[in-house]
Amino acid sequence: MAFLNDHYLKLKAGYLFPEIARRVKAFAEANPDRAGRIIRCGIGDVTEPLPEAVRTAMHKAVDEMGTREGFHGYGPEQGYEWLRHAIAENDFRSKGIDVADDEVFVSDGSKCDCGNILDILGYENRIAVTDPVYPVYVDTNVMAGHTGEADDAGTYSGLTYLRGTPENGFIPEPPHEVVDVIYLCFPNNPTGAVATKEQLAAWVEYAQHHNALILFDAAYEAYISDPALPHSIYEIPGALECAIEFRSFSKSGGFTGTRCAYIVVPKTVLASTTCGQRQPLHGLWLRRHTTKFNGVSYITQRGAEALYTPEGKAQVAALIEHYMGNAQILREAARSVGLSVFGGTNAPYIWCSTPAGLTSWQMFDRMLDEANVVITPGSGFGSAGEGYFRISAFNSRANAEEVANRLKRIEW
Amino acid sequence: MAFLNDHYLKLKAGYLFPEIARRVKAFAEANPDRAGRIIRCGIGDVTEPLPEAVRTAMHKAVDEMGTREGFHGYGPEQGYEWLRHAIAENDFRSKGIDVADDEVFVSDGSKCDCGNILDILGYENRIAVTDPVYPVYVDTNVMAGHTGEADDAGTYSGLTYLRGTPENGFIPEPPHEVVDVIYLCFPNNPTGAVATKEQLAAWVEYAQHHNALILFDAAYEAYISDPALPHSIYEIPGALECAIEFRSFSKSGGFTGTRCAYIVVPKTVLASTTCGQRQPLHGLWLRRHTTKFNGVSYITQRGAEALYTPEGKAQVAALIEHYMGNAQILREAARSVGLSVFGGTNAPYIWCSTPAGLTSWQMFDRMLDEANVVITPGSGFGSAGEGYFRISAFNSRANAEEVANRLKRIEW
Repeated sequence: MAFLNDHYLKLKAGYLFPEIARRVKAFAEANPDRAGRIIRCGIGDVTEPLPEAVRTAMHKAVDEMGTREGFHGYGPEQGYEWLRHAIAENDFRSKGIDVADDEVFVSDGSKCDCGNILDILGYENRIAVTDPVYPVYVDTNVMAGHTGEADDAGTYSGLTYLRGTPENGFIPEPPHEVVDVIYLCFPNNPTGAVATKEQLAAWVEYAQHHNALILFDAAYEAYISDPALPHSIYEIPGALECAIEFRSFSKSGGFTGTRCAYIVVPKTVLASTTCGQRQPLHGLWLRRHTTKFNGVSYITQRGAEALYTPEGKAQVAALIEHYMGNAQILREAARSVGLSVFGGTNAPYIWCSTPAGLTSWQMFDRMLDEANVVITPGSGFGSAGEGYFRISAFNSRANAEEVANRLKRIEW
Repeated sequence: MAFLNDHYLKLKAGYLFPEIARRVKAFAEANPDRAGRIIRCGIGDVTEPLPEAVRTAMHKAVDEMGTREGFHGYGPEQGYEWLRHAIAENDFRSKGIDVADDEVFVSDGSKCDCGNILDILGYENRIAVTDPVYPVYVDTNVMAGHTGEADDAGTYSGLTYLRGTPENGFIPEPPHEVVDVIYLCFPNNPTGAVATKEQLAAWVEYAQHHNALILFDAAYEAYISDPALPHSIYEIPGALECAIEFRSFSKSGGFTGTRCAYIVVPKTVLASTTCGQRQPLHGLWLRRHTTKFNGVSYITQRGAEALYTPEGKAQVAALIEHYMGNAQILREAARSVGLSVFGGTNAPYIWCSTPAGLTSWQMFDRMLDEANVVITPGSGFGSAGEGYFRISAFNSRANAEEVANRLKRIEW
């Protein structure tokens, strides 16, 4: 008799975004006259065209695939050497961070990498996540059997939740208890908070002291404009011994629908066998990546490579400037109507407190009904997100301005 | 202290193909005069250009991505509706098999799907594989902790191996013992054997009787020319209740470097909770796929869709005809020099016995040294593969003819 993985049955029914989609659809059907007015600032999906440098490179690669000589079949699962080199050189070595080409693994998305990394980690680990949190960190641990059941607020027993609050700027300090694996995401999704070097250094020190592992999600690093803020955890001395970093082209190069990302696994990051022997994780990840993955499309990798050309870099900078211009408009509008506003200065997300007495989902419904604007309810990111909502800056300028105007017209 | 997944340490050092690459490199370096003569019939990677219909569709999709209106960000993780519909309609419903669009999940490769499917299955399952076997089935079970240690031949305790032999035509019958999950691959990699409807019916009957689950890998179905042979396990009555099928565009549309595949999870396939309650696997896979995967590139999906147009179908047929023409040439050559030859008539692989006294790796070295031809040693696919080698028909016609000539010139 075939058995299923019972841990899946612990998962709460809806992933956040399908529930949002359901409510938007219901609203549009009930209000056909207003359906066309709906502006989506919910899901964090980019809206602007794929950079020209990327498209030019992809056209060329498609043409290459049309000849025997230029055809590319299976490539190295870890990514082509030229892309790994461009990444390591541009994103790390040119910034004084000693990452080797073969410590970079090209993948088809950070969401995949964040989930897949658990494959190489043991069951003994005590896992810590921030709250609010990107739901994928939690759900993949539930699926892997690292948790007990959830309570009504969606909090799972067996996980350590580190609470983000206005008081700590939504950047929790290391806990007093001992944990083995810690997920950190800066610039943060959903709060837009960005840890300083000092704050990250406290985490690196904690990890060194406890031989813990930090899983550092830097998918939004391109949105940092403050030169004092770190883009990579490897800017912190010692992090190359205790952290794996996730990066993505989704939000920098507009690759959400094109699919390319990467993960850095330094050879100096160790973890322990059950017998207590410390070994590098690099070899395990290499085995995982080459056995359970077959590489990213050649055509896509050529597109990603083009992001590192002078033209590509300029086009990425223009995209970031566009979205951060939206963020400023939305942030100012939210502030002007009296909301407490976080994020939105080094991150494409604006995190706002709901007006007194409103839950996150009530706020969602009110924004949809009164302003025809889709936001993301904070409670979808964990119990500490209750009383907040997230506005995404991924939109056209016209839409961002219109959302700002509508925010100002609501009676708060 | 962070713990690693100890099960990875049970894996034998080298995956087959890296070891082949290592030996070829060493030979080429030691024999620079013959390096240019080497012809690769080892890894099963296609060699001919990506079909024109695919390239045209991909060019169009790249251009669409260059406008706000045509830009595609995150798509449905399961694949765009138009592609799932084209797949279900063309590959199943038009052939009388009742597969719904939403039972098709588009992915970036069968290797990934074969490994990932274990995520939704329980630890209690007794797993059966054929021997010889595609190594990924075994290795992913080792990684997931479903086995004990390996012996010297690479056979893992805790797995049930079903031995393929010339006597059973390399198509093992269901075992007398009870197993819960069975991997079947037809047309088979590496032996080229294809199960008849009667043979598959015995497996479906076994699965029904034991409430077992069949994982059916049909990545090579496009190579079947005998109209009596089944392309899908769903041609067998009852299979929609006990089988998940893996399909790929890698070997049909030449997508090994372009990356698109799919898996069919019928809603009628059930598995048991530890408490013995039977539930559909479809919902679990949907949750897995949407939580740990972010969909295949829009551009790639448009390319895959083009395989179902009249032009695309004709171009795929021409590719298959080309490779199967090679297979016939190679098969005849191997037979003419007195080898026992299997496969190669409804599959792109020719499976040959080594001459008396030679192990698979000795044969590999001899072919490399005497004919400068790279083949795959059978023992790389499991202990039952010892004494055999695999010749891949994925090559240019000129190379296939040259390999045939060189085979005939070796002193056997």
